[in-house]
Amino acid sequence: MTRIAFLGPRGTFAEAALRTMASAANAELIPAISVYAALEMVRDGLADQALVPMENSVEGSVPLTLDELSTDGGLVIVDEVVLAVTFALVVPRGVSLTSVARIATHPHAHAQVRGWLSANLPEVVVLPALSTAGAAEGLLDPERNYDAAVCQEIAAEIYGLDVLASDIGDTSDAHTRFVLVARDGVAPAATGADKTTLALYIHHDQPGALLAILNEFSVRGVNMTRIESRPTRKALGDYYFSVDIEGHISDARVAEALMGLHRVCLDVRYLGSYPRHDGKEPVLRDGVTDADFAEAQEWLRKLKGK
Amino acid sequence: MTRIAFLGPRGTFAEAALRTMASAANAELIPAISVYAALEMVRDGLADQALVPMENSVEGSVPLTLDELSTDGGLVIVDEVVLAVTFALVVPRGVSLTSVARIATHPHAHAQVRGWLSANLPEVVVLPALSTAGAAEGLLDPERNYDAAVCQEIAAEIYGLDVLASDIGDTSDAHTRFVLVARDGVAPAATGADKTTLALYIHHDQPGALLAILNEFSVRGVNMTRIESRPTRKALGDYYFSVDIEGHISDARVAEALMGLHRVCLDVRYLGSYPRHDGKEPVLRDGVTDADFAEAQEWLRKLKGK
Amino acid sequence: MTRIAFLGPRGTFAEAALRTMASAANAELIPAISVYAALEMVRDGLADQALVPMENSVEGSVPLTLDELSTDGGLVIVDEVVLAVTFALVVPRGVSLTSVARIATHPHAHAQVRGWLSANLPEVVVLPALSTAGAAEGLLDPERNYDAAVCQEIAAEIYGLDVLASDIGDTSDAHTRFVLVARDGVAPAATGADKTTLALYIHHDQPGALLAILNEFSVRGVNMTRIESRPTRKALGDYYFSVDIEGHISDARVAEALMGLHRVCLDVRYLGSYPRHDGKEPVLRDGVTDADFAEAQEWLRKLKGK
Amino acid sequence: MTRIAFLGPRGTFAEAALRTMASAANAELIPAISVYAALEMVRDGLADQALVPMENSVEGSVPLTLDELSTDGGLVIVDEVVLAVTFALVVPRGVSLTSVARIATHPHAHAQVRGWLSANLPEVVVLPALSTAGAAEGLLDPERNYDAAVCQEIAAEIYGLDVLASDIGDTSDAHTRFVLVARDGVAPAATGADKTTLALYIHHDQPGALLAILNEFSVRGVNMTRIESRPTRKALGDYYFSVDIEGHISDARVAEALMGLHRVCLDVRYLGSYPRHDGKEPVLRDGVTDADFAEAQEWLRKLKGK
Repeated sequence: MTRIAFLGPRGTFAEAALRTMASAANAELIPAISVYAALEMVRDGLADQALVPMENSVEGSVPLTLDELSTDGGLVIVDEVVLAVTFALVVPRGVSLTSVARIATHPHAHAQVRGWLSANLPEVVVLPALSTAGAAEGLLDPERNYDAAVCQEIAAEIYGLDVLASDIGDTSDAHTRFVLVARDGVAPAATGADKTTLALYIHHDQPGALLAILNEFSVRGVNMTRIESRPTRKALGDYYFSVDIEGHISDARVAEALMGLHRVCLDVRYLGSYPRHDGKEPVLRDGVTDADFAEAQEWLRKLKGK
Repeated sequence: MTRIAFLGPRGTFAEAALRTMASAANAELIPAISVYAALEMVRDGLADQALVPMENSVEGSVPLTLDELSTDGGLVIVDEVVLAVTFALVVPRGVSLTSVARIATHPHAHAQVRGWLSANLPEVVVLPALSTAGAAEGLLDPERNYDAAVCQEIAAEIYGLDVLASDIGDTSDAHTRFVLVARDGVAPAATGADKTTLALYIHHDQPGALLAILNEFSVRGVNMTRIESRPTRKALGDYYFSVDIEGHISDARVAEALMGLHRVCLDVRYLGSYPRHDGKEPVLRDGVTDADFAEAQEWLRKLKGK
Repeated sequence: MTRIAFLGPRGTFAEAALRTMASAANAELIPAISVYAALEMVRDGLADQALVPMENSVEGSVPLTLDELSTDGGLVIVDEVVLAVTFALVVPRGVSLTSVARIATHPHAHAQVRGWLSANLPEVVVLPALSTAGAAEGLLDPERNYDAAVCQEIAAEIYGLDVLASDIGDTSDAHTRFVLVARDGVAPAATGADKTTLALYIHHDQPGALLAILNEFSVRGVNMTRIESRPTRKALGDYYFSVDIEGHISDARVAEALMGLHRVCLDVRYLGSYPRHDGKEPVLRDGVTDADFAEAQEWLRKLKGK
Repeated sequence: MTRIAFLGPRGTFAEAALRTMASAANAELIPAISVYAALEMVRDGLADQALVPMENSVEGSVPLTLDELSTDGGLVIVDEVVLAVTFALVVPRGVSLTSVARIATHPHAHAQVRGWLSANLPEVVVLPALSTAGAAEGLLDPERNYDAAVCQEIAAEIYGLDVLASDIGDTSDAHTRFVLVARDGVAPAATGADKTTLALYIHHDQPGALLAILNEFSVRGVNMTRIESRPTRKALGDYYFSVDIEGHISDARVAEALMGLHRVCLDVRYLGSYPRHDGKEPVLRDGVTDADFAEAQEWLRKLKGK
């Protein structure tokens, strides 16, 4: 039976996301205490795969995930899933809205429900917690110093809590993207609607290095869907770039761009090719399909062979 | 007397950084409970300026600061300061290393002292806290469930704690950059060694929009020292770019690049021109000094005037 | 009365082109023996304007015109005209096709009627002449060693010759573009459908100098309609670029591009802004109209003025 | 015995250039009446190779050569030679400078000796001739209407003429570059200091097509040493680009750039890879040697193979 680790505790967005994936149906789902721990379980063979959050339409990328995948190696992304994020106000069984004086939640979630709170609980005190699921779980603790939690609704179910209000986020279309990570190996077969994730380390003494990278993609007609800069932990202003591109390592245009990057970058880390969650096929400009690459190679072969 | 808010509580890196600035010498320093609160104090006139963390060589940018400055407006950066980050293991008076079984600290700080801990306290349990200074302050609470904190040494002094070990970080040259923020107004005069911070919102339906932005800088010889992508909170994959460039809004090359960006971007938010902490003057390529721009303008005037 | 010089002798394409222009209606038209002589007449005040050939859809640019305008200065283009090129076989009065054994024409014209000649006069000998009109004029010379000329039909009329065959060119849509040149001065007013001609001298020790030039145009949304490289007469491989762009020196995007080029090029020679022959208005990308430039300037003024 | 055609008549620069080449030592040298005729002799098997002029530091490229090679196909460049151009004033035996009243020469040569003539023969009349060697040969004709010719000194020797003045050109370092052309076949082996000549036909309805071409070279670190625009003979403003690049078709960076161009251009015509006359090896940026390409391919193979 496949074992899939996820960022716990039970009731997090990660578990909710995982349960939407076909591969989770017959798998053992194992909560991990941190992104780091979930990935370590895969590296150590305690799990076959791990589902970890990658980016969020409200808060941005998840630095820990990017950095762990980019710097430590050995793992690749094999699938992704995107989940709508909604928040609920949950309380221990029987508590009513009027008796809520103190709420615990993660500061990011707090930022997203600020509007609802000022309209409905203008006097409430909000305490910071390390995760929304942790805030929910804490409600089971008799010595807690708060009355309610803002978290995903799934947490109410898991911890036996009551939902006082659903979907209280200010931004109605917030989403979180999770990636399914496995030990380094052969990529899933290309589907025609794939993404590839890379970590690119540039030479910082070369002005225009970022422009050079974008040109490597642009010349081969490879579209970028995400670019994040992350510090290399060496010095202020020393970044690497975490990048998602459209296409699969087995696509000719992606392969040539990867080789080009490998030649101009200090380092290129390949973090996997995998099917896109939305199944959207790339709109390619003229001259960059596999057939175009093959035809050009045949043309060159004839020129040289004469 | 000038009032400067900073990210509290007392003993944070922010206070240590602020104390190194000339402008703090005769100012009233006011701790704020969050970056958001510090910035609100300036907006509301409760403080004249606020010092908030902008980026860290280990953890990267501080999303909250970037987002608050970029999206809410009304504030600009007027100065910056960079502080070396060192960590200490602190305990209540009289506690010895051998009796430390549980440590509290922020997960980022934990990541940075992992090496020291496994060498010196291999069995210790590490509990997550919301800030390193908060972990230190918590040692004053008799009901705390931990014995020591990893934080900046200044916190020991402020809270009357003992330092068991200094400079225990694994990366010796970690730095944090703070920015001093004021209400929107005239920028500090150009010094010849300045930076300008921008938030750039691009048209996402235009492939190559990021390339276009980089070209606007490149054509005017403007060097970029930092680029961060941040979600716009609208949809996954919808970013804005937080950018630092070399030069001052009153430099001709910067002014022309800003106008160019204003024409191609969905929105350009100007977040201030201010002296660089390191006083390093930019290395300019030929043809982009103020004198070069003035000479070209005079040349054009003559061509048209004849 | 305006005096307009043209590349003679009478009967050349240049005269035919000139007669199509409104400004020639009441002007004195003066044939010159060469492009050089026509331009000298303007420089010396012997003529007010000169019409000289600039490029030909079959033979390409006219190097002499490009070089004279680019290197010697003092003259600018104020108008242009495009004329369809057709060739005729002409003979002295009374000569029949069967008695034509030797033909004189310019080698370029020969190249363009090769097909007709092999079909209709397969055995004919073709002698090179310095111009097609010269070949026609030579038919008046009793000591000539040829029987017919290939030239523009207008030459038959001027020199009293018979036309044996009209429109004998192999390419039916050949055109020649002529420019009307005047002494340096204020450009004709912008019409909204204008061209500007430039000579750009680059730094040859800088790899990528041509890319840099194209970027100066591209960043301001200026389209190039012609680029020709011409030797600078200094060394092999040392070129200048003769360029036509869409727009008028008084257009903001053109003005900014010109100043940018002035800063990066060794030298920029402005050779005039003038109405396009075809009246075609440019298709501009977003953000590069005069209104866009004015709005960006106002935006910057406010940012700085606060 | 190898037969090499050259642009005649005897005494032209082409013959002088050919005599400097090792391959001409034991070859039969055959004058042709035009560039076209010389190339036809090779196509028809009447000659093995042809030496034709390609460009001149004073007059620029030789359009006929560019166009013949680019459009008709079947021929490739296999070698090049560069010759210093000097002019002499030649006369029939016994004629003295004081009796020279009329001179014949090609207009290009006239342009280059203008300075010497105004200083030494200010009253002389200059008649246009179709070639400088033709002007010299014409001096043998008793019915000629001129007294002297401006041509290469070698022509004096060939036609038994006197040299009245040597090296009378205004530009002391004028050069002409000739190319040796053969029937299409395997290119000469790479020497490490090679050039490749191409004709590139772009899609004219795509703005930025020239920028795209330059990027194909730039991304692979291929330097361009010559670019000429030439009309395609279809319409005004419809060009192809005649380009020389550093490197050999067997170099990995050149091969990949060629395939890239093949994919983005309407048509790419390969006109040969051959040793540079000056033996100058290219200065390559990091990451574009054959070893770099091989290493990147191996890296990719491993990524995919796992």
